[in-house]
Amino acid sequence: MISPSEGASAGSKRRAAVVGAGLIGGSIGMALRERGWHVTGRDVDRDHSERALASGALDAIGEDPESEVTFVCTPLEFVPTEVERVLASGLGDSAVVTDVAGVKSPVVEAVDDPRFVGGHPMAGSEQVGVEGADPKLFVGATWVLTPTGETDPNAYATLRSVVGSLGADVVALSPSQHDTLVAVVSHVPHLTAATLMNLADRVSEEHAALRRLAAGGFRDMTRVAAGQPTIWPEVCAENSAAIVATLDALLSELGTMRDRVATRDRAALLEALEHAAVARRSLPARAVKPERLAEVRVPVPDRPGVLAEITTLAGDLDVNIADLEIAHSPEGDRGVLVLIVDADAAQRLTAALAGRGYRSTSARLS
Amino acid sequence: MISPSEGASAGSKRRAAVVGAGLIGGSIGMALRERGWHVTGRDVDRDHSERALASGALDAIGEDPESEVTFVCTPLEFVPTEVERVLASGLGDSAVVTDVAGVKSPVVEAVDDPRFVGGHPMAGSEQVGVEGADPKLFVGATWVLTPTGETDPNAYATLRSVVGSLGADVVALSPSQHDTLVAVVSHVPHLTAATLMNLADRVSEEHAALRRLAAGGFRDMTRVAAGQPTIWPEVCAENSAAIVATLDALLSELGTMRDRVATRDRAALLEALEHAAVARRSLPARAVKPERLAEVRVPVPDRPGVLAEITTLAGDLDVNIADLEIAHSPEGDRGVLVLIVDADAAQRLTAALAGRGYRSTSARLS
Repeated sequence: MISPSEGASAGSKRRAAVVGAGLIGGSIGMALRERGWHVTGRDVDRDHSERALASGALDAIGEDPESEVTFVCTPLEFVPTEVERVLASGLGDSAVVTDVAGVKSPVVEAVDDPRFVGGHPMAGSEQVGVEGADPKLFVGATWVLTPTGETDPNAYATLRSVVGSLGADVVALSPSQHDTLVAVVSHVPHLTAATLMNLADRVSEEHAALRRLAAGGFRDMTRVAAGQPTIWPEVCAENSAAIVATLDALLSELGTMRDRVATRDRAALLEALEHAAVARRSLPARAVKPERLAEVRVPVPDRPGVLAEITTLAGDLDVNIADLEIAHSPEGDRGVLVLIVDADAAQRLTAALAGRGYRSTSARLS
Repeated sequence: MISPSEGASAGSKRRAAVVGAGLIGGSIGMALRERGWHVTGRDVDRDHSERALASGALDAIGEDPESEVTFVCTPLEFVPTEVERVLASGLGDSAVVTDVAGVKSPVVEAVDDPRFVGGHPMAGSEQVGVEGADPKLFVGATWVLTPTGETDPNAYATLRSVVGSLGADVVALSPSQHDTLVAVVSHVPHLTAATLMNLADRVSEEHAALRRLAAGGFRDMTRVAAGQPTIWPEVCAENSAAIVATLDALLSELGTMRDRVATRDRAALLEALEHAAVARRSLPARAVKPERLAEVRVPVPDRPGVLAEITTLAGDLDVNIADLEIAHSPEGDRGVLVLIVDADAAQRLTAALAGRGYRSTSARLS
């Protein structure tokens, strides 16, 4: 449903849709519109849709069966239902639907359609709602996509290109791998920050001065705990196995740290802290845009799963795919996957591909 | 020992000394010199002293028996020895000596001299050495002082005024209370950050993509772990009782959090996270400089311990003392302690003072 005033100019534009007009949905809408797309959107709360329209995140309120890419940006528990609803709404075969939920296995398992690719932009804000939306939210942010053996390679390639055009650094991972890794870098740190904050808060009831002693380090460590908590119970329920395993590992390690302090084992403490300092300093400051690129060409059979296998292999090897193209052969049963990667990483990727039986070639771009 | 070229101009200046010419010692030297002080300093490493002199943190290298305030800025384990050495170097009775170590009870217990007041500026930097020194390091930072019953009230008042003049927000606490509170807001968060970082690092050996998923929240939480680890084994040894008790509380709370995730207890998770969000949002952004002040006058007997008792009471009540003066009575056995505090907090302070048997009066300044 396109508002009459928009119909004329919408004709020549690429078309996208957003379901759920909050911070992420609004930011996607704004970023796409800045790039010339026509964006239709809806929200279960009509007032949210109106505000998204008013703030420039949408061209029109409603659904768009001609949408090339639809982003389902609802809370996790509504994603499978909303994705199915969009897929059943008369979209074409070449359309792609994705979501932005923070846990991927349950969503990907629930949706059985080659046009769906799970996604998770790792960008957020302490803001809530479309008022906090920002078209630059994804610039430099990591955006995980979770193609599987069922995914239509063309749908994936389209989505990858669109997400990349928003400035995001795209990483392909399997759904389960995504869920394990976010338990470590996001879910457990969040629960730990909240626990530290609650502990300090209890102490501050007796010792009010604590609040004035809470300097930079403590503030940094607990910042995420200030965020909107409503999404977390669902995230914890849906990713409970990975979170519990990671919390168990953390509890064990923290218990070891406690024993080192109790026994005044200075050497072991220093070693642990030095290891952490080296690891922390070597975290990349942000996604590094490579100056020198190489093209890796991989002849592939035209069957489901190949694209997912190769892109998630690259993700797992920490090989950044700067661009990706699928060249189909005229015969139709084979194609060539063309990956643009960091020149330094090309060798690593071709070796790993050889280990999986793919004979790839690489050539430096200059 | 003052270099000849400085002797002339130094005559009319207030004089301070710094022992240990690293980041904190250098920053104190720079800040004092900006305010017109003459600063003499030394470091166990002659090269550090030379660099401090060259970078403008010192006027002269050596000791200064005429120093009004001496800051001992060595690592924790050397503080008692260096403080004793300074106190025995011919300083006058009205001189004051302080330190900047992160654990206070062992230092304060080791030094038995009314001219010594323990201190802990809660400002730092990922920088190391005098090259990272910054005269503005203490502006807005909390600087804890730990006067005791043995402390000379005039020494405390002098130090308080000097530290406040560097822009710091001074909080008086008992040594043991300081140590308990820093275990909660600094030591245990630091050990937790290092543990989280090491856990993630181990996972990233298997799953290289983890490093690209480590977004803002994880980076915030582990930032302190990048700092120089060398001071921490000593800090942990000297404050082991408070750290172990706090780690035990954290382990217990995190274990509860784990069980909530394992049992998918959404309601309990939401409640814990909402409590943390409220607590984190109510952390003061930084020391608030009050617009409206009140003067609280407390007639006090001229005996040791009164100043420590009243200022640490204010610290514990989270009553910010903007200024402090001691008016001695002509008779010499009684005096009036004049505290300038937030107008909103004056009532809280006078009530608490009444509970301790002090009859104070307060009047708003306008």
